[in-house]
Amino acid sequence: MVDFEIRLQEYCSLVEKELYNILNRKDSKKQVLFDAMNYSVGAGGKRIRPVLLLEFNRICGGDVRSALPFACAMEMIHTYSLIHDDLPCMDDDDMRRGKPSCHKAFGEANALLAGDALLNLAFETMLSSESNINSELKLKAAAVIGNFSGAEGMIGGQVIDLQNEGKEISEELLLTLYRDKTAALLRAASTAGVILAGGDQTKIEAADRFAEKIGLAFQIIDDILDCVGDASLLGKPIGSDEKNNKTTYVSFHGIEGAKADALRLTTEAVAALDAFEDKTFLTQLSDYLCTRKM
Amino acid sequence: MVDFEIRLQEYCSLVEKELYNILNRKDSKKQVLFDAMNYSVGAGGKRIRPVLLLEFNRICGGDVRSALPFACAMEMIHTYSLIHDDLPCMDDDDMRRGKPSCHKAFGEANALLAGDALLNLAFETMLSSESNINSELKLKAAAVIGNFSGAEGMIGGQVIDLQNEGKEISEELLLTLYRDKTAALLRAASTAGVILAGGDQTKIEAADRFAEKIGLAFQIIDDILDCVGDASLLGKPIGSDEKNNKTTYVSFHGIEGAKADALRLTTEAVAALDAFEDKTFLTQLSDYLCTRKM
Repeated sequence: MVDFEIRLQEYCSLVEKELYNILNRKDSKKQVLFDAMNYSVGAGGKRIRPVLLLEFNRICGGDVRSALPFACAMEMIHTYSLIHDDLPCMDDDDMRRGKPSCHKAFGEANALLAGDALLNLAFETMLSSESNINSELKLKAAAVIGNFSGAEGMIGGQVIDLQNEGKEISEELLLTLYRDKTAALLRAASTAGVILAGGDQTKIEAADRFAEKIGLAFQIIDDILDCVGDASLLGKPIGSDEKNNKTTYVSFHGIEGAKADALRLTTEAVAALDAFEDKTFLTQLSDYLCTRKM
Repeated sequence: MVDFEIRLQEYCSLVEKELYNILNRKDSKKQVLFDAMNYSVGAGGKRIRPVLLLEFNRICGGDVRSALPFACAMEMIHTYSLIHDDLPCMDDDDMRRGKPSCHKAFGEANALLAGDALLNLAFETMLSSESNINSELKLKAAAVIGNFSGAEGMIGGQVIDLQNEGKEISEELLLTLYRDKTAALLRAASTAGVILAGGDQTKIEAADRFAEKIGLAFQIIDDILDCVGDASLLGKPIGSDEKNNKTTYVSFHGIEGAKADALRLTTEAVAALDAFEDKTFLTQLSDYLCTRKM
């Protein structure tokens, strides 16, 4: 477990330094843009997507330095989606990670543009990265990331979420939403990591399966934590209510059923790692992500 | 001139068909997203950026079919920027090209996400395009487009515009704004066209010079037209006022000075075309863009 913590810390520190290098720009004419981008990217977070990309890359024989621009791109895409999600016309959240959200700190227009600029910069960073990875693989990895973060992936999930706000939805639609909104970027990071290292189709698919299951488990655990938190806050028996009357996984399966399914999904995720020789870190990461507070 | 009109029409029709192919998706769970994207991309416009890309590509020996995904990407980037520009937190425009703007037709959140999805799809389209263009050149062209459309290009220009709303600005800052907000995407399209065809550095730089000068001329002419329109509307002598008290090129040089500079810039743009063997179409395009109503 000590090795796990050290490697996790190493990855995070590499990513944060590189993000700082990419984003720390000075231009008095548009300083507010860079400040807003930096503010949100620097606001913390577990850097799970970059970590997944770097580790899948490493266990497939890739070079961490070459994969780093892609890892940073994943974090920029994740951050832009949070900035736009927080805007008044979306979730209207004033706070994010214990700090005022981007539009509260910099105004709506600047937050909108900082989000746009981060999405754009994510692609710029991948496309202009100098490394010994061949161009074919760079193109393929960036295309996969683009696909998972776009209309057929994460953005599609945001739309489904919006369309169904306050409505009762079917379990099937809920799972589609989780797959698109949460799992898509994890799948992007994991498969891109394998692709950049030249991993074969079997490994790409295994990484994809791992990330999809971890994403679902992760989201179900979020639902459980929300529900437990809310219930204890309101003095209600646990499992009797859902946050803001929102349909969640707990609505369909109750707390205990949801717990069992999250554990099953985590086990299935770990099983998908059999395609790789060195699965120690990712197994521990799954544990770290999916057994918090359960 | 007949040949010019025919080729222009051919390019536009190719681009519009391909955009339709890319965007005409059916998915009942998120249909509103595709509808909003289609609505704005299909709302018309002169398709100048795709046309520039395709023509620069052609005169450097490129194949129009292979360059088409990049041409469509340029139009998607341009359209996303208009959708976000029209949002209430930005310019708050209810109308665009004679139709309700995207957020008026589909709501703010959907317009925001349709813009995000178009930017994302622009990169997806470039990165996953199947063609005989080698991966190195595709990467380089997409990176150049990313650079011109991002924080150092178009988005930077939008921020400078916002920061200085209602303020008196220097001529230097006005020109920076025009270079970033208007010329950047024209430069992206023109240089990417050359790059995709394998054109050398001299040609890339000539295309860049052409597009920068055309972009500035274009923006100055817009200023003149706004000013003339406003003045005649208000019964004031032409040249005595600027739209919404906004500092424009006319504020510094008057109508006649602005006209002279727009003509000079157009002439300089056309001179940059000497680097290319076949400059007929682009010369006529410059004329078409820069002598309207002057």
